[in-house]
Amino acid sequence: MTRFSLLVEFDGRPFMGWQRQAHGPSVQQALEEAVQAVTGEQAVLHAAGRTDAGVHALGMRAHVDIGKPIEPFRLSEALNALLRPAPVAVLACEVVPDDWHARFSCRGRAYEYRILNRRAPLTFEKGLVWQVGRPLDAAAMHGAAQRLIGRHDFTTFRSAHCQSESPIKSLDRLEVVREGERVLIRAAARSFLHHQVRSMVGALAQVGLGRWTADDVTAALEARDRQRLPLNAPPDGLFFVDAIY
Amino acid sequence: MTRFSLLVEFDGRPFMGWQRQAHGPSVQQALEEAVQAVTGEQAVLHAAGRTDAGVHALGMRAHVDIGKPIEPFRLSEALNALLRPAPVAVLACEVVPDDWHARFSCRGRAYEYRILNRRAPLTFEKGLVWQVGRPLDAAAMHGAAQRLIGRHDFTTFRSAHCQSESPIKSLDRLEVVREGERVLIRAAARSFLHHQVRSMVGALAQVGLGRWTADDVTAALEARDRQRLPLNAPPDGLFFVDAIY
Repeated sequence: MTRFSLLVEFDGRPFMGWQRQAHGPSVQQALEEAVQAVTGEQAVLHAAGRTDAGVHALGMRAHVDIGKPIEPFRLSEALNALLRPAPVAVLACEVVPDDWHARFSCRGRAYEYRILNRRAPLTFEKGLVWQVGRPLDAAAMHGAAQRLIGRHDFTTFRSAHCQSESPIKSLDRLEVVREGERVLIRAAARSFLHHQVRSMVGALAQVGLGRWTADDVTAALEARDRQRLPLNAPPDGLFFVDAIY
Repeated sequence: MTRFSLLVEFDGRPFMGWQRQAHGPSVQQALEEAVQAVTGEQAVLHAAGRTDAGVHALGMRAHVDIGKPIEPFRLSEALNALLRPAPVAVLACEVVPDDWHARFSCRGRAYEYRILNRRAPLTFEKGLVWQVGRPLDAAAMHGAAQRLIGRHDFTTFRSAHCQSESPIKSLDRLEVVREGERVLIRAAARSFLHHQVRSMVGALAQVGLGRWTADDVTAALEARDRQRLPLNAPPDGLFFVDAIY
């Protein structure tokens, strides 16, 4: 068996998420079916992160073990041909050691959340951004975001369905920048709780709209209470951008 | 009657083009029906440029005359509400003098053509870029593009269906820049012939692939012969970005 690492880009709009689901299409299933068509083997893909329905990836990492001899470039070409017309692309493919694991070897994960801050309706980016019609104060959002940096109990920012053993995580980076009509939130950590990025973006949007102060964000964090959170940002704007090993 | 200028963004994928067609949806029809729903008036929209099927706009300018009293902001809000779910958005709306004309007053038009230069298939941008799998030399393309600047007979770069009285046009700007995997071609002129931008991009792609030299571009221009052109770039990557008055 040879272990291959795949760098995968996907548009999450038509998928129930990364993970195989009984009741709808998933990125994992699309890739596993393509691997089976190439190799005749029933392989299982492991990913650095299991994204939710409607969440996208610019640089997801996954691995798969294949018995049939095949060159990495040939494998990626064959997978891309078989994945059509699903909006999933293998950007890179390489052989890795047998003990390399896309999920367990991953030392850092980075997400980008994209807000289109304008009143006019979406045209090109339906399902690819969160549209916020009222003006957001990105500088205030960035300031408040710094309250969340470091090691904390993130229970407030955790889905009720989160399967993580502990709500304690270390957040390394949470930056908010404005680029014209866009407000981009970039988050990096060793790992995240379920819905953590979308929950943090939801809280920061309250700050951007002037409804919350940075102190309200601190208070919500310290409350360790999911009920303190006004809303989750929708999946549309969330992109998994990088896995670090 | 009051004349309103509209700044319009649209995703050209579902449309037969700007202009009303008997056999398919057009941006003009979508907007005219929205105006009629707001005002009860059968108004005609005039645009700075009539884009082809599948061509997009980030900043098309159009005007319309309306008898019913209405504030510009209210008009744009109502049009945007009625345009849903069509991917057309009115970004700005203002009252202009009665002799201001979106097409005839326009002193300059700017287009951007977007190439995604990578081997992996498209995910997020199907219909929004031209995918070229083999590496393009953007610097060589830019150099060759400068051969087309100035006042020339652009017969080689003109559709057989072009209705312009003369094939002589002045090209003010044709820049090719690489941004990562993207190659962007920016063109500006007082006006363009039908298919001129896509034809020029098709020729520059030949240069980028190493099949043509800059001298071949000059020779094709001077031949004034449509047969000299290897291909038109597809509409997917073409965006009308600005009209100058």
